[in-house]
Amino acid sequence: MILGKVCGQIYSTINHPFYDERRLLVIDILSLKGKPTGDYIIAMDAVGAGFDETVLVINEGNSARQVTDAPQAPVRSVVVGIVDQIQ
Amino acid sequence: MILGKVCGQIYSTINHPFYDERRLLVIDILSLKGKPTGDYIIAMDAVGAGFDETVLVINEGNSARQVTDAPQAPVRSVVVGIVDQIQ
Amino acid sequence: MILGKVCGQIYSTINHPFYDERRLLVIDILSLKGKPTGDYIIAMDAVGAGFDETVLVINEGNSARQVTDAPQAPVRSVVVGIVDQIQ
Amino acid sequence: MILGKVCGQIYSTINHPFYDERRLLVIDILSLKGKPTGDYIIAMDAVGAGFDETVLVINEGNSARQVTDAPQAPVRSVVVGIVDQIQ
Amino acid sequence: MILGKVCGQIYSTINHPFYDERRLLVIDILSLKGKPTGDYIIAMDAVGAGFDETVLVINEGNSARQVTDAPQAPVRSVVVGIVDQIQ
Repeated sequence: MILGKVCGQIYSTINHPFYDERRLLVIDILSLKGKPTGDYIIAMDAVGAGFDETVLVINEGNSARQVTDAPQAPVRSVVVGIVDQIQ
Repeated sequence: MILGKVCGQIYSTINHPFYDERRLLVIDILSLKGKPTGDYIIAMDAVGAGFDETVLVINEGNSARQVTDAPQAPVRSVVVGIVDQIQ
Repeated sequence: MILGKVCGQIYSTINHPFYDERRLLVIDILSLKGKPTGDYIIAMDAVGAGFDETVLVINEGNSARQVTDAPQAPVRSVVVGIVDQIQ
Repeated sequence: MILGKVCGQIYSTINHPFYDERRLLVIDILSLKGKPTGDYIIAMDAVGAGFDETVLVINEGNSARQVTDAPQAPVRSVVVGIVDQIQ
Repeated sequence: MILGKVCGQIYSTINHPFYDERRLLVIDILSLKGKPTGDYIIAMDAVGAGFDETVLVINEGNSARQVTDAPQAPVRSVVVGIVDQIQ
């Protein structure tokens, strides 16, 4: 699992039906010091994350499918939490 | 999931039968700013993606098998969407 | 599996219910010489690891789910041991 | 999936029985421009690939097990095609 | 699968019971030219590999669980062969 910052959203009309009503976020991966690295990952939103929020992302298909309640879904990365504080 | 640009196609005669009538695309992985990085991935097309289009790629076997409706297929990466806009 | 040092903890109120009463640790990944690299991973604690301890981390969903006894859990990385000595 | 060039073979006498009569190839991973990068992967041959040939490699356990018809096999990477042309 | 050189062993008293009587090796990952890179992986021994030996490592959970005959084990990386020769 990694930490990232929501920095955008993707719009796609020609795609797999699973994506039709789901938000695909662009996540800028954070460094250990909490700075955006410029590396990114595209992840499905599962917590209502907003722009510029720090989030916890899981990059594993089975986790993503369980979170989205869609055991057959083609999805690998999902935002599972909004981070309040890193101590 | 990552974003990439379709930059080529692979032709192969000696291969696993699963690949016989499927398009294998060369995808140049995009940076957060949308520039090709020169890193690439070979992915199966599932949306009819054309040359130079920006696409969403999933790099996970179970997702790829579900998209291709081939539960036994040897495939890991698949193009699941054509991206209209990144906000 | 990799070695890391516990360097923080994450607090999150808006998240998947699975995380409600579990500790999410920030793990600074160690180099072969045992020095923190500045690369990190967020992992669930399964052994009561404390701040600054050297730990063994597995970064695989099925392992993480088996350790947490939660076959449906959205979790990929888990701390499975506290390292006494590297020879 | 990635492209590589066959640059060697591995011989091992003490190993898991699954490997006894299978060819393990050393694959030099190719760049987007088709040049060897010096990064490599060890992959099982499934198509009779020869030295210096350009091949398609899948680096995923379930794909590798399906190609080798060995559902219990400890194998992750497999050569699934010989590439004729990249366009 | 990758090649590495055994360069150490890990001792841990507080850990998941699965690790109690198993050897966890520190593996220095080798370059294409057979030189240690300083990158490493922690892998469970399955072939009785000794210090300084060149080994074949699989970094995939299902492979590791099949080799260790422990379908529920939290393990991802396993040493599956001792390499005699790379041609």
